[in-house]
Amino acid sequence: MEPSTETNKEEEEQVVTPWEVAGKDGGKIDYDKLIDRFGCQRIDQSLIQRVERLTSLPAHAFLRRGVFFAHRDLTEVLDGYEKGEKFYLYTGRGPSSEALHLGHLIPFMFTKYLQDAFKVPLVIQLTDDEKFLWKNLTIDECQRLARENAKDIIACGFDISKTFIFSDFNYVGGAFYRNMVEVAKRVTYNQAVGIFGFTGEDHIGKVSFPPVQAVPSFPSSFPHLFSGKENLRCLIPCAIDQDPYFRMTRDVAPRIGYHKPALIESLFFPALQGETGKMSASDPNSAIYVTDSAKDIKNKVNRHAFSGGQDSVEKHRQLGANLEVM
Amino acid sequence: MEPSTETNKEEEEQVVTPWEVAGKDGGKIDYDKLIDRFGCQRIDQSLIQRVERLTSLPAHAFLRRGVFFAHRDLTEVLDGYEKGEKFYLYTGRGPSSEALHLGHLIPFMFTKYLQDAFKVPLVIQLTDDEKFLWKNLTIDECQRLARENAKDIIACGFDISKTFIFSDFNYVGGAFYRNMVEVAKRVTYNQAVGIFGFTGEDHIGKVSFPPVQAVPSFPSSFPHLFSGKENLRCLIPCAIDQDPYFRMTRDVAPRIGYHKPALIESLFFPALQGETGKMSASDPNSAIYVTDSAKDIKNKVNRHAFSGGQDSVEKHRQLGANLEVM
Repeated sequence: MEPSTETNKEEEEQVVTPWEVAGKDGGKIDYDKLIDRFGCQRIDQSLIQRVERLTSLPAHAFLRRGVFFAHRDLTEVLDGYEKGEKFYLYTGRGPSSEALHLGHLIPFMFTKYLQDAFKVPLVIQLTDDEKFLWKNLTIDECQRLARENAKDIIACGFDISKTFIFSDFNYVGGAFYRNMVEVAKRVTYNQAVGIFGFTGEDHIGKVSFPPVQAVPSFPSSFPHLFSGKENLRCLIPCAIDQDPYFRMTRDVAPRIGYHKPALIESLFFPALQGETGKMSASDPNSAIYVTDSAKDIKNKVNRHAFSGGQDSVEKHRQLGANLEVM
Repeated sequence: MEPSTETNKEEEEQVVTPWEVAGKDGGKIDYDKLIDRFGCQRIDQSLIQRVERLTSLPAHAFLRRGVFFAHRDLTEVLDGYEKGEKFYLYTGRGPSSEALHLGHLIPFMFTKYLQDAFKVPLVIQLTDDEKFLWKNLTIDECQRLARENAKDIIACGFDISKTFIFSDFNYVGGAFYRNMVEVAKRVTYNQAVGIFGFTGEDHIGKVSFPPVQAVPSFPSSFPHLFSGKENLRCLIPCAIDQDPYFRMTRDVAPRIGYHKPALIESLFFPALQGETGKMSASDPNSAIYVTDSAKDIKNKVNRHAFSGGQDSVEKHRQLGANLEVM
């Protein structure tokens, strides 16, 4: 695997996996440490300016303000684009809630900007199989949630002539399955444990899943879209907790004749309670959903959101508001 | 899991897995021990007579002569059949050689008899994905071998109106994939290690495969064949080295609302060199292929087959032939 992919015992303080995000001692995520540990690159000012030049558009606010802050091989994708080589975008969603919340929207809003700016095709994977494997839900329920979530995703306004949204339970098979098996053959169980932290008591469904999330990175998984374009590069906008899947994918890709997918990675969207957690579907009061009414939102903000105020009026009079937290 | 499924350290002497068959100290397979260790039942005379009564046909020679010698839940299948409940047959082949040899034909010849005698549907799985995962072959080559092997299988004369032959690379998806994920969620990695002996250095493709071989045991994996018949029982004729797959399947089946598949299991077909090994595609001189010419067969028998004769004329004059070996 690439350098620094294995779980590093000295840095167990903060945990960032596709299933768990927790800062050291319940504190903030140290993104600099994460970049070091994962081995990706920070997006700097000159890279943002290059994107602006190539697209003849001001960069998206999420890029200017560092919400998307890290990347892998974005430079190579832009080099190719400059020479007239197109690429395609791949992003996704694990459908575990009835509707999307603001945190879920971050990659989709940013992907919509990238699609418009670069005029490129986009595939969106709904990992209903992943949610079935990790959550206590039936397959039917996961498929239903995938369909509900697709509506929210469609509402972001993607170019319908260039966008393919699919659920794994509907789409796995054929060329996609062949690529899954090609990937699975090239990752040992020990490597998977190093990347994802599986234990012997985890079921084999979890061990089988990473190739499913890997293969949309390869154009040949979509013969109806990319037939004859098997050399197309792939750029994946996602939150940085998905990095382990794509470290694995990038390790395998050249060994089966594909480009490594490039990544552009975001910070976690903070919970209403403050910047120490991420907005999570597991705690409805931490999140504002696209289906929340104005009244719901008002209540959540007033009752649950971090204000900087102290716990009691007395303490607040004594200490004043905490203005350190953004 | 069912009793006695874990690898028993005391009985490591003989190894019988889907990938390796070896008697203790290179000797004969002890099938009584195997029955004990796997926890299946011996087929006795009264069961054979019951099959004859129910089918109004003499039992197949492979049954009378103990080639098919063990079973799981065959009695339950016959109980149902007696009450007018049909079942379906499921057998398969891992396509790793250009043509089938005599050993490969055993389950197919017997399955043909069962289909004719009970007048039941049959599904035949060609595990081209398994061969890709375990052998040094490309996917294209495995798919080609599956097609070649299908010709030999078709030549056994199955009822074409009641038989569905499929390759995994062509068929995995939809309801079949949903069942794969249902099974995978219910087998821990530790259980898989206990059943199949995987190590941490094995790739995750191997760990992902057992559910693929499991799910043809469930009628809902074939909606175009068994829609509305999700309660149909399944009977699997196979060599006893496939038992680990179906011990796993039988453990999971009731937990996802399906019948346990029943099994009828054969001895290994001996190599030409004698009864201590099994006829194997890995050693062409151990096997007679359906594509061998009369001359090939004559050569193989004269040069490589066990005759009972001693190593030299001198020793043969002194000791005479070994007539103990069948």
